[in-house]
Amino acid sequence: MNKIEHIGIAVKDMAEAKNTYELLLGTVAYKTEAVPSEGVNTVFLQSGPNKIELLEATSPDSPIAKYLEKRGEGIHHIAFDVDNIEAEMARLKAEGFVLLNDVPKRGADNKLVCFVHPKTANGVLVELCQSIG
Amino acid sequence: MNKIEHIGIAVKDMAEAKNTYELLLGTVAYKTEAVPSEGVNTVFLQSGPNKIELLEATSPDSPIAKYLEKRGEGIHHIAFDVDNIEAEMARLKAEGFVLLNDVPKRGADNKLVCFVHPKTANGVLVELCQSIG
Repeated sequence: MNKIEHIGIAVKDMAEAKNTYELLLGTVAYKTEAVPSEGVNTVFLQSGPNKIELLEATSPDSPIAKYLEKRGEGIHHIAFDVDNIEAEMARLKAEGFVLLNDVPKRGADNKLVCFVHPKTANGVLVELCQSIG
Repeated sequence: MNKIEHIGIAVKDMAEAKNTYELLLGTVAYKTEAVPSEGVNTVFLQSGPNKIELLEATSPDSPIAKYLEKRGEGIHHIAFDVDNIEAEMARLKAEGFVLLNDVPKRGADNKLVCFVHPKTANGVLVELCQSIG
């Protein structure tokens, strides 16, 4: 895994959170993207080679809505950049990690993604992501 | 802020967690360090320009022990690398962020550190860190 590609943060009010993280990081968000398949709106901010992805739920059955209800605002996942997501998925599966999807799926920010179950990673929701196009 | 310096993960059993994250990241931990002032043992793993810091409590009144009791294992904080921690602390304070320490303190891995209260950063415990020596 090449680096932390991004950290996903679940937020209640995107306008407020975007303003807060722009002030915190001293930068301006470079992208806003809806991901209807996940029921989320996303905003991305750059921090050197890494990104912060703010996540706001757009439907009550979105994973982010459920997370906010259970735990409140906070860090939702860590995503690692990989060159070959299928090879990493096979390697992790062989090591005993539980993957939440069998084949890579299309995520935000032009990525193929796969999630690792938090129960096999000390409570951390880990995302693998490979850039496409 | 230059990049995500590291992600801190609170774990119950360091030996198990170290093994898990070595397998997950396909790397070997490069440092183990006790921080008695914080009541923690730490293990560091590299992921490109970033690090994962595993945190295990060594006393029941350690912030990590309290975190584990309240929330279970998971992501504890995000640390951002800064060039001048005192300048960043002054900037953030002026922007309305609540800092958990008034002056930088000595953290693990040869850093000066300061924490930002999660209530002013959408539930995220943010650490600023500046390398020393």
